[in-house]
Amino acid sequence: MPPAVAHPVRLLPLVFLALILVGTLLLLLPFARAGETNPTFMDALFTATSAVTVTGLTTVDTGSYWSPIGHVIILILVEIGGIGIIALATVLGLFIGGRLGLRTQMLAQVDMHVVSLGEVRPLFRRVTVTLLGFQAVTAIFLTVRYRIAYFDSLPEALWNGVFDAVMAFNNAGFSLNSDSLGRYAGDEAVLLPVSVAVFIGAVGFPVLAELYRGWRRPSRWTIHTRLTVWGSLLLFAIGALAFLAIEWANPATLQDMPLVDKIVTAIEGGVMPRSGGLQSFDWNLVEAETQAIAVVMMFIGGGSASTAGGIKVTTFLLLAFVILAELRGDPEVQIGRRSVSGRTVRTAISIALLAVMLVYGGTMLLMLWSDASHIDALFEVTSAFGTTGLSTGLTPELDTASQLVLIGLMFIGRVGTIAAASAFVLRRRQPRYHLPEEQPIIG
Amino acid sequence: MPPAVAHPVRLLPLVFLALILVGTLLLLLPFARAGETNPTFMDALFTATSAVTVTGLTTVDTGSYWSPIGHVIILILVEIGGIGIIALATVLGLFIGGRLGLRTQMLAQVDMHVVSLGEVRPLFRRVTVTLLGFQAVTAIFLTVRYRIAYFDSLPEALWNGVFDAVMAFNNAGFSLNSDSLGRYAGDEAVLLPVSVAVFIGAVGFPVLAELYRGWRRPSRWTIHTRLTVWGSLLLFAIGALAFLAIEWANPATLQDMPLVDKIVTAIEGGVMPRSGGLQSFDWNLVEAETQAIAVVMMFIGGGSASTAGGIKVTTFLLLAFVILAELRGDPEVQIGRRSVSGRTVRTAISIALLAVMLVYGGTMLLMLWSDASHIDALFEVTSAFGTTGLSTGLTPELDTASQLVLIGLMFIGRVGTIAAASAFVLRRRQPRYHLPEEQPIIG
Ligand SMILES: [K+]
Ligand SMILES: [K+]
Repeated sequence: MPPAVAHPVRLLPLVFLALILVGTLLLLLPFARAGETNPTFMDALFTATSAVTVTGLTTVDTGSYWSPIGHVIILILVEIGGIGIIALATVLGLFIGGRLGLRTQMLAQVDMHVVSLGEVRPLFRRVTVTLLGFQAVTAIFLTVRYRIAYFDSLPEALWNGVFDAVMAFNNAGFSLNSDSLGRYAGDEAVLLPVSVAVFIGAVGFPVLAELYRGWRRPSRWTIHTRLTVWGSLLLFAIGALAFLAIEWANPATLQDMPLVDKIVTAIEGGVMPRSGGLQSFDWNLVEAETQAIAVVMMFIGGGSASTAGGIKVTTFLLLAFVILAELRGDPEVQIGRRSVSGRTVRTAISIALLAVMLVYGGTMLLMLWSDASHIDALFEVTSAFGTTGLSTGLTPELDTASQLVLIGLMFIGRVGTIAAASAFVLRRRQPRYHLPEEQPIIG
Repeated sequence: MPPAVAHPVRLLPLVFLALILVGTLLLLLPFARAGETNPTFMDALFTATSAVTVTGLTTVDTGSYWSPIGHVIILILVEIGGIGIIALATVLGLFIGGRLGLRTQMLAQVDMHVVSLGEVRPLFRRVTVTLLGFQAVTAIFLTVRYRIAYFDSLPEALWNGVFDAVMAFNNAGFSLNSDSLGRYAGDEAVLLPVSVAVFIGAVGFPVLAELYRGWRRPSRWTIHTRLTVWGSLLLFAIGALAFLAIEWANPATLQDMPLVDKIVTAIEGGVMPRSGGLQSFDWNLVEAETQAIAVVMMFIGGGSASTAGGIKVTTFLLLAFVILAELRGDPEVQIGRRSVSGRTVRTAISIALLAVMLVYGGTMLLMLWSDASHIDALFEVTSAFGTTGLSTGLTPELDTASQLVLIGLMFIGRVGTIAAASAFVLRRRQPRYHLPEEQPIIG
């Protein structure tokens, strides 16, 4: 058995590395670049990483820097790195089957909720078709609206509609316009379809599959689906309401808008930080409190095995239940009528703590290597780790070292903290005996 | 049995509340105030809370706002709230004995490492005498230096020496001077004794007791002592070296100092954020990176059952071992030749996550209610939660609501996140059956 299959935990990072490498080489080809000069290596590497990890942070203006061929390359990288990888993980999960440990199961997370080989293949095909169908519907909506209100030619409207629909569903924040969705600010016929597409994309494959089979019976949903669905709705509602309240009187965002536009923009403000990354307003001009809330949302991210990054909704909510159990003095962590093993809890903590370390470490490096303020550095770093793609405009101003930090964070954010970190830690032999317990004083 | 003893988890918060109340009333007495006007209620409440929780944040200038009687009241509140509470916790631990659960043991943490009643009382007396002895020695050192170099009268030098020695040992950041230790900047004959006293005070009673009995045999130390001692030294070394490196060329701090002064100031920079709170330089003028590192150090804090706040060194290091075990794929979390129970791990996570929520929530409130920047709000809030007392000067400028946030954080930081939060959560009956396990997807 080749090493990569014997150690499947190493496979996913390798797949992503290979995709980034191929993407970089493709973008370095002269015809990928618009204008006279060749693309620089750093711009190609950054763009390829951002596309494959479905982030959307950019060092250059996507629309004007890359040629139409470059845009097609980015679109394909996004589709492979987003929905494509989830398909691979599913197949991988089936291939390795029951031999996966908890760690490696995380790579192919979807296999934990599907029972037999026979059940999965048609299911996978149906969900993939459904996802592509959703993308097509969104693309049609956007194309019609773009043709009516923004573009004179149908091909141009169509290309923008397809591009934005793919970006929305894959939660990739790339846009052909230099101001992202800025020209569509307050236009509910654009912002609502895009927000819905981003929200569905961020829910994740396992949950969509389960909803597809049994959305009528919430009482039978697995814990994972319940946590993801209710958690996603809750985080969206908190984000949108906080955005509305804080930005209400901000002249740079909501103040001068009619009420409907205010609400639509607040919906965007609630959806996008949870990994979408498209923006109809300037995140550099929102209140600092809104930025701080967005940092939390980007850090949490979307659902597991989705196109979103971050520590994931389930990880976040599980930790909330852990705290609740501790405060109540419960012997077990319970969610619904189910208990959660200590091992699962340990994995959740490790993910959250590694994420905090990475984000705060990255923030300090950006502060050291640039003139960025604390909140600006934190915002951009969290956006990279959460593969969100929202930006206050800092990324293009950074030096190479700082951009490499963001590249590393996008990669880790997409591959998963544990999978990425495991690659650097040798697996020790499992000890065959238990050591005596001792209880250090905590807190 | 009275309710407070039947539910000892509620006792410690009540004791602290009572102390703060008494302190506030004492400071409201006209003769506690220097000058003509009476002290305001908020200033008295804030100062009393800051003193009882051995923090050192102040809304007013301690030296000029309070009379000598006011200073004596603050000194006594600090001694009771610092070393005094640790004595109470010990007695409490003995009184309730083996009936404590993990949650309540945290209140009287010291009882976990002492075996019998007969062993503890003389030990406690000896350690208390030793601590007071340490304070006396520090006071003598400082008095001599103050008399030689700074004050013309011996009583003045003595009073300043005693005050600063008590503050240092209790990790309380109050100073009779408006610039804290500013006038002693670079004076190793002041900064070194103060730093040593702060470091020892932050180690904590259980560790000091164990070191007293067996400091020659590190191999026999409990895990708790090993984690605390090596962790404290490691965090100090990291803090001091980072301070030296980042501030080396900062004209507001190290640049113009001779080498010895640079080193002494870096030692202070490594010690004080771990809960001391005295400062010979202006934390508003250090580099933003140094502030960010100090935030991490203040958040971690000192040893358990010490005069320090924060999540504590053991909690922090235990979580590091949890991550290591997860990455290695170990079934148990192991430290040294001992394993740590899942329940202990759960407590550690809960503390760390509650702390993150409190600190980030407090930061957002301060940002909402004042013009403070993100880093300034984060710095002051973490200083309150860590009962550290370092300040960039923000506290006096805050409105009443924000100052109440800081008061709440100082209280929670000193009482302990879990103890404070438990007071708000009803203890459910322990379920007598186990629920079936289910494994949500994590990460
Ligand atoms: K994104
Ligand atoms: K302090």
